[in-house]
Amino acid sequence: MARLQEQIDFLMEVDKLKEVHRRTWLCSGVRLENSAEHSWHVSLAFLLLHEYAPPGIDLMRTLQLLLVHDIIEIDAGDTFLYDSKGNADKPMREEMAAARIFGLLPEDQQAEWIELWREFEERITPESRFARAIDRLLPLLHNHRTRGKAWQEHHISAEQVLSANALIKDASPELWAFARALIQDAKVKGYLT
Amino acid sequence: MARLQEQIDFLMEVDKLKEVHRRTWLCSGVRLENSAEHSWHVSLAFLLLHEYAPPGIDLMRTLQLLLVHDIIEIDAGDTFLYDSKGNADKPMREEMAAARIFGLLPEDQQAEWIELWREFEERITPESRFARAIDRLLPLLHNHRTRGKAWQEHHISAEQVLSANALIKDASPELWAFARALIQDAKVKGYLT
Repeated sequence: MARLQEQIDFLMEVDKLKEVHRRTWLCSGVRLENSAEHSWHVSLAFLLLHEYAPPGIDLMRTLQLLLVHDIIEIDAGDTFLYDSKGNADKPMREEMAAARIFGLLPEDQQAEWIELWREFEERITPESRFARAIDRLLPLLHNHRTRGKAWQEHHISAEQVLSANALIKDASPELWAFARALIQDAKVKGYLT
Repeated sequence: MARLQEQIDFLMEVDKLKEVHRRTWLCSGVRLENSAEHSWHVSLAFLLLHEYAPPGIDLMRTLQLLLVHDIIEIDAGDTFLYDSKGNADKPMREEMAAARIFGLLPEDQQAEWIELWREFEERITPESRFARAIDRLLPLLHNHRTRGKAWQEHHISAEQVLSANALIKDASPELWAFARALIQDAKVKGYLT
């Protein structure tokens, strides 16, 4: 049972993702979202919205990317999309985190899960491009719902949001049209500067 | 875009699952777990442990069951496994919840998602039997890690835990052997009465 024990210990270690806070507020506005519940929300969003993905996309692979991609935040923290300083050393912090955390797994799964995390980051495959688009779309929806609560706190402009979300365009024209209209609406309503 | 708008509205509605609290404590013991982060944790556990599932199980279907099964708790609340009164009217409360919440979806997805929730509850297919086993295993691990914090609070005995977790046996002999040893250890250490 040594293998199973390693897998269980890993599962208990990643429980810590429930205590990593993001900059996004829950729709109710009562508190910030954590990265574990966000990972559920993007996975569910993918189940719901995969009809807007390029045909032939591997559904199971995309779900794996979405479920695994944030685990490195246990060590590396959540880096705010609009934090240019934090984003400069993000790759190094995340590489170290991946080595330690996925290093707890049995060897075959170590390699497999590091590869999942890397695929998500590199955004080359159709699966990772669509997964990354969903991962961007959700905070946009939350921000719009909370009248720009996180945007206001961090003085984010419509131009910054448009540019950060442009990768949705590469993944899905329908989702991009929706996202762009939402950003425009947020600008009109004064949620964005 | 009426269809996409309905799907997005559903996604914003299910954000409420992040505010439904379970009886299980995080491994760190700082607070109770919520149902959204639990849904992520069981989905991830399935990715990690599906080698202990019966051969030929549909991986994608099992993940769908795990990601969707708790959504009805937004209206019905989380019913504690050892609450016999709460469990008596649970089916009726959950049927009503499923009708309202999944009713927000476009018609084709309504039918599909209600079916996912029902399959999980009925525990007839191999996918739902294994998904239910994973859903039982996680709280057991959390309770063991926190020295029986939730068990102690609710005066739960080893016999109750053994009986509530027996469905793991039908799904996977390896996971059942592990779970049984954990319950025995919890009894020896006095985490259970």
